[in-house]
Amino acid sequence: METMGRHVISELWGCDFEKLNNVEQIEQTFVDAALKSGAEVREVAFHKFAPQGVSGVVIISESHLTIHSFPEHGYASIDVYTCGDLDPNIAADYIAEALGAQTRENIELPRGMGPVQVKQSKVKAL
Amino acid sequence: METMGRHVISELWGCDFEKLNNVEQIEQTFVDAALKSGAEVREVAFHKFAPQGVSGVVIISESHLTIHSFPEHGYASIDVYTCGDLDPNIAADYIAEALGAQTRENIELPRGMGPVQVKQSKVKAL
Repeated sequence: METMGRHVISELWGCDFEKLNNVEQIEQTFVDAALKSGAEVREVAFHKFAPQGVSGVVIISESHLTIHSFPEHGYASIDVYTCGDLDPNIAADYIAEALGAQTRENIELPRGMGPVQVKQSKVKAL
Repeated sequence: METMGRHVISELWGCDFEKLNNVEQIEQTFVDAALKSGAEVREVAFHKFAPQGVSGVVIISESHLTIHSFPEHGYASIDVYTCGDLDPNIAADYIAEALGAQTRENIELPRGMGPVQVKQSKVKAL
C-alpha cells in the first residue's frame, strides 16, 4: 500500500450545542461521512464526557476520522485522514454541514510524502 | 473545558518491520505513551490489516493518539493531540523510540485557537 495520504484538519465554530452533545448522532454522522467518501469502516469508538462533549474515531481502511466536541463553545475539532484515491473533503464537508457549523477553518496536509507542509489554509463562513 | 489544544504530527521513517506489524505491541506502546504524558485513557481501538499494517487509536480525555503503519515502507504516520496542560511531545517521542524510527518529520499545530498555523516544522535523524 502506498504511504501517500491527505489529512484535512477542520476547526468548526458556531455549531449547535445539542448536535455537539449527542454521541449517537455524531457517531452516525461520522460513519455516514466515511461511507459517503467511499471508505471502508473498520473500528468505531465514541465517548461521551460529563457534563458535555464527545470524542470519537472511525478507523477506516484508508486511515481515520476523529472528533472532539466542546458544546459549550460551539466548537468541534475534526480530522479526516485518507490514503488512496479518496477525497477527505467529502467527509469533512458532510460533517461540517451535519453539525451546523457557522464558520470553518480548514487546512489540508499531505502525509507520507516527506516533510510535512501545509497545502491549503482557509477560513470561511458557512 | 478550554478548546485550546496541541496537535503533533510525526512522520516516522526507517522503522523496524516487525514492530510496525505487531498490533499488540503497538497498542501497548500507545497506551503507555498516553499514560506517560499524563493522559486519561478512555477508548482503545486497533486493527491489523492483511498482509501487513496496523491502524489504531487511543481516545484520551484530552483528545487522541493515532497510528497508521506501513511495515513494507518502514513508515508510521502518528498523531498525538492533547488539550489542557499535557505535552504531546512526551508521547510522540516515546512512540518514535519504541518503533525504532531512524528519521522523524515533526510538526506541531495549535488547535481550538482560531486559524490553524504550523508552529514548528523539523526533520531530524534519530
